[in-house]
Amino acid sequence: MTRPKRGFASDNNAGVHPRVMEALGAANVGHAVAYGDDAYTVRAVGLFRERFGERAEVFFVFGGTGANVAALAAVTRPHHAVVCAETSHVNVDECGAVERLAGCKLLPLAGAGGKLRPEQVEPLLARRGDQHHSQPRVVSVAQATELGTVYTVEELKGLAEFAHREGMLLHVDGARLANAAAHLGVSLEELTAGAGVDVLSFGGAKNGMMYGEAVVFFDPALAEDFRFVRKQCAQLPSKTRFIAAQFAALLEGDLWRETAAHANSRARQLAAELRAIPQVRLTQPVESNAVFAVLPRDAIARVQERFFFYVWNEQTSEVRLMCSYDTTEEDVRELAAAIREALEG
Amino acid sequence: MTRPKRGFASDNNAGVHPRVMEALGAANVGHAVAYGDDAYTVRAVGLFRERFGERAEVFFVFGGTGANVAALAAVTRPHHAVVCAETSHVNVDECGAVERLAGCKLLPLAGAGGKLRPEQVEPLLARRGDQHHSQPRVVSVAQATELGTVYTVEELKGLAEFAHREGMLLHVDGARLANAAAHLGVSLEELTAGAGVDVLSFGGAKNGMMYGEAVVFFDPALAEDFRFVRKQCAQLPSKTRFIAAQFAALLEGDLWRETAAHANSRARQLAAELRAIPQVRLTQPVESNAVFAVLPRDAIARVQERFFFYVWNEQTSEVRLMCSYDTTEEDVRELAAAIREALEG
Amino acid sequence: MTRPKRGFASDNNAGVHPRVMEALGAANVGHAVAYGDDAYTVRAVGLFRERFGERAEVFFVFGGTGANVAALAAVTRPHHAVVCAETSHVNVDECGAVERLAGCKLLPLAGAGGKLRPEQVEPLLARRGDQHHSQPRVVSVAQATELGTVYTVEELKGLAEFAHREGMLLHVDGARLANAAAHLGVSLEELTAGAGVDVLSFGGAKNGMMYGEAVVFFDPALAEDFRFVRKQCAQLPSKTRFIAAQFAALLEGDLWRETAAHANSRARQLAAELRAIPQVRLTQPVESNAVFAVLPRDAIARVQERFFFYVWNEQTSEVRLMCSYDTTEEDVRELAAAIREALEG
Amino acid sequence: MTRPKRGFASDNNAGVHPRVMEALGAANVGHAVAYGDDAYTVRAVGLFRERFGERAEVFFVFGGTGANVAALAAVTRPHHAVVCAETSHVNVDECGAVERLAGCKLLPLAGAGGKLRPEQVEPLLARRGDQHHSQPRVVSVAQATELGTVYTVEELKGLAEFAHREGMLLHVDGARLANAAAHLGVSLEELTAGAGVDVLSFGGAKNGMMYGEAVVFFDPALAEDFRFVRKQCAQLPSKTRFIAAQFAALLEGDLWRETAAHANSRARQLAAELRAIPQVRLTQPVESNAVFAVLPRDAIARVQERFFFYVWNEQTSEVRLMCSYDTTEEDVRELAAAIREALEG
Repeated sequence: MTRPKRGFASDNNAGVHPRVMEALGAANVGHAVAYGDDAYTVRAVGLFRERFGERAEVFFVFGGTGANVAALAAVTRPHHAVVCAETSHVNVDECGAVERLAGCKLLPLAGAGGKLRPEQVEPLLARRGDQHHSQPRVVSVAQATELGTVYTVEELKGLAEFAHREGMLLHVDGARLANAAAHLGVSLEELTAGAGVDVLSFGGAKNGMMYGEAVVFFDPALAEDFRFVRKQCAQLPSKTRFIAAQFAALLEGDLWRETAAHANSRARQLAAELRAIPQVRLTQPVESNAVFAVLPRDAIARVQERFFFYVWNEQTSEVRLMCSYDTTEEDVRELAAAIREALEG
Repeated sequence: MTRPKRGFASDNNAGVHPRVMEALGAANVGHAVAYGDDAYTVRAVGLFRERFGERAEVFFVFGGTGANVAALAAVTRPHHAVVCAETSHVNVDECGAVERLAGCKLLPLAGAGGKLRPEQVEPLLARRGDQHHSQPRVVSVAQATELGTVYTVEELKGLAEFAHREGMLLHVDGARLANAAAHLGVSLEELTAGAGVDVLSFGGAKNGMMYGEAVVFFDPALAEDFRFVRKQCAQLPSKTRFIAAQFAALLEGDLWRETAAHANSRARQLAAELRAIPQVRLTQPVESNAVFAVLPRDAIARVQERFFFYVWNEQTSEVRLMCSYDTTEEDVRELAAAIREALEG
Repeated sequence: MTRPKRGFASDNNAGVHPRVMEALGAANVGHAVAYGDDAYTVRAVGLFRERFGERAEVFFVFGGTGANVAALAAVTRPHHAVVCAETSHVNVDECGAVERLAGCKLLPLAGAGGKLRPEQVEPLLARRGDQHHSQPRVVSVAQATELGTVYTVEELKGLAEFAHREGMLLHVDGARLANAAAHLGVSLEELTAGAGVDVLSFGGAKNGMMYGEAVVFFDPALAEDFRFVRKQCAQLPSKTRFIAAQFAALLEGDLWRETAAHANSRARQLAAELRAIPQVRLTQPVESNAVFAVLPRDAIARVQERFFFYVWNEQTSEVRLMCSYDTTEEDVRELAAAIREALEG
Repeated sequence: MTRPKRGFASDNNAGVHPRVMEALGAANVGHAVAYGDDAYTVRAVGLFRERFGERAEVFFVFGGTGANVAALAAVTRPHHAVVCAETSHVNVDECGAVERLAGCKLLPLAGAGGKLRPEQVEPLLARRGDQHHSQPRVVSVAQATELGTVYTVEELKGLAEFAHREGMLLHVDGARLANAAAHLGVSLEELTAGAGVDVLSFGGAKNGMMYGEAVVFFDPALAEDFRFVRKQCAQLPSKTRFIAAQFAALLEGDLWRETAAHANSRARQLAAELRAIPQVRLTQPVESNAVFAVLPRDAIARVQERFFFYVWNEQTSEVRLMCSYDTTEEDVRELAAAIREALEG
């Protein structure tokens, strides 16, 4: 078997967008001060402020887990708790990084579509002030979620208002914030600062970057000590200009929206194809670049011989199919065809 | 003032070597499985084993602090202590990352040229077995050191033998291992596995890479759980192929030695120029790509108007001048000339 | 309102058993080496080995949270996970101590009567070996549980066999192990070493001691570094003789069983009284010294004016009534009478 | 050899003062709410405020290491550093508890008599604001020090003023604060709140208590979250009344000063005896209950056959001789005689 050029396993499997690659080359000129004190960083931070609002404090870090854990470590103390979805990356996919680096307890909640609602969080506040219990301090949500669903601006506002009323903060894991904004047709600022988000992990690698993530604080007071937290959590890149240049390429001319919208379109195309297959059942609304579907077990194996993707839940025979900025209409048609063939047996 | 293209502040300020840049472009084809299960990683690991020995277990991480702290966390428990030089990066320049992520105490020792000797470490073992005291478990040295000095293979062997005799391990922070190997004219294997090193942080960014570091274990048993430690310490890159491709470029045809030797030569050239200036005093032997020198205080300020570099010690008026893989003979001559002019006042 | 001498809030509210108090006085003679190197400790450890088996490695610590967290920290690394009941003390009542001191993730499971079964744990092992996920290493159960239920020896054996087969360990939070052993009519050894338990927190404070807890390892290899872990977790008492003397008093002549059996009897008496009241519903089997019952909300407030106890669940109007080694038959009758009166309104 | 009733090894080897023992018995009546919500605690806290000032926020914990580490964890974040004496308990004798529980770096300084001076701390502030370096946040001193020396009120004031001017805090490890206050003839308030101390670990075990320590904050804002930190660091005693009762016994009628002054007197008596022996050299001023002396090596061994004490420094043949609240004049005379005999050898 030759592995296909483009699979549906993960948007992390895609390469680097040509315009990002170009920007990396363009930044590779002469010397630039390391650790963020360079012109590329100044420019990228400026672009962030144009997109996310003037109060945004922006810090570049290496990766998504690092962004989440450093962001959460910055706004908590170890006796705090972070409320999150049971299915969230911070809870499931970071090998306990929050517990180790922030020392905090996570309080995971089950929720439809991997989304949290204020009324779910409320009961967790019953023990506030009681010294025996970790004190909820942050509500952390992923936008888009790990199940491909998207919070509306109103839903985020509802969570932020609830959090602030209760003396808590709202953190957004925005590894796929671009896909969410593209889906909703709103600006990055409307979806973050405008919705009351306090701190954001903004990802680039799933949307055409090589590496690099940004932690963005919308209240400068929260950012005060962040440069130390970033360094101590081993998330300070030395040659920062190369992360800055990538983000600049993504933000300039809103390339981020173009690439994210493309990936979302392919997911909708795929969903449409699958809905037409009687033996396949979609399990989540398709609101970003992910399609979740239940397929007959033996068909999965056959399709996997031709396309790389992950089984999400062995027991329910549910698969996750991720589209990327570089997924083509043809790729989607071929996958759908392969599924149909596999089902015909 | 226009900042000069190439300064002497840090080898981290240099850009990416053209052949590394090329390799990044070449790796940017189609999809590749994320998190290390890709052909680029397989190939790079193979090259590591050719250079460092067949038993080497190789793990790619984001950066140097992450490499050090994850390596040390993997081979210690929080009640252990790590013996290191007072001037070492792990002690001084990582904002307490070891303490936070490994939970360990560092036991810093002062030593000539930033180097440790077994007889310095010995007294720290007096309290072994006593429950009140952190138990020394690792000797951590930098090769080359933060002061630009280089351990001979014999010196490393002496430290490794001492460590092993006492039930301890030897860790090498090899952010500039290439410079040390180039200086000594030995292979990477002779300088690590051959010298008894147990675990190595092998750096690329200071020698022409964009980002990326490798943690190399020379005893596979020590590496057993490392993939979890790496992830939990937020050091697992998603698009690993791009770190792998860079390292492959560096190792193939021994580009690493060429670039490191070049930087070392420029440092020797600079040292020769400075030795000829009576008001300047070199403070460390020049064995890698760093030159440490004491200059009259007011001259420093004047030179800094034209070249970017750091004052190492304000009180002694000592500066650190770092050469990079891209420093030219002309750059060095111009710096020396600027110093002479500044001294003439 | 005058607070009654003896309430039903917690077995921690009771004082010190007269024979324990006597032992404290008797140990207060002259000097004794601090930190465990004294004759009282030697003697108490001997008594532990008589009760728990000759392989038991015994370490005295200050308190119950400290015992649990130090025990778990000793047998885990931060990338491990500890599987526990959702209602367990380690999960709910220690303000995140395990997360902070061991750095581990807890994986809480809901279960009838606060008890875990192997088949519940099994699905958590699906992601073993996958670097993105915390690796389950310990099953931690409370015996008796926080809901007053007791694992049979067979149930514990089942958990231990499952754990060992899967390369995991079984930890028992035995803050109320005495109550469980008294309920089952088995020896401490049968209930721990004999059932395959690997490490135990054995509590004294809830059974007549002033303070002090023991961490007991049943495999000496697990205990190897524990004295360092204990000290680093701030759990090493200086005047250890006074904890040793208390435990000796408790173990000698099996006072522990007498006191625990007494408390259990009072709980059964209380349960019998409450079962006779139609408006009261017991919610858990009464197997140790706790009685859980649902009462009409307004009755609770009235009873609390006369007896001190805690509402366990505000929403279901469920209360927890704890009996102690010093609860009298009269106390129980008075409480039952107060409840009946409150219900008559 | 029969070990003598009272040795000179440690004030932790002494037992419990009769009046403290009495207080424990008196507190052992009926039930009292656990975890600090009891009348004994209210009364003890009142006595603390009488002695330490009305703004004192007082929290009882299990032991000295726990007091230090919880106090420091409460007022730092992991990227902070704690400046302390090289010889300090927090640095040397707590097996790395601060590093593990607070995540902080310690910055140990050598100083005459184990004491710190502001001008020593100053150079450590050079790198403030630089993200690569742990940020000094607390100066932690022991009073009396581990070498038996005592800071004058003026010296403490100097440290506090320096710390506050630099945005730092002053922590005092007061395991032997009573001895220091007795030596100086000042009140506890003058020596703490009055001198500008921000947070204090106040010890009882070395001065006649069985166990128990208090963390005292002199600025209520610093204490805000301390009850959570205490619990999460496993330092919250369940039957708090028994620590409260002991402290009340110590503070009432100023028993603490009587016992400490007694121990100090015995140390001065011992020093006088030793000064009269030509082969013995005192190495530290005798300002509390410790005497440090250099003795011929073979004499040490002979004296140790009759009296239990520790060699402080094997290489310099220096011993530490600790007096306790129960050391008698006769004990001291016998020790001095034993030394003289051993020297006549």
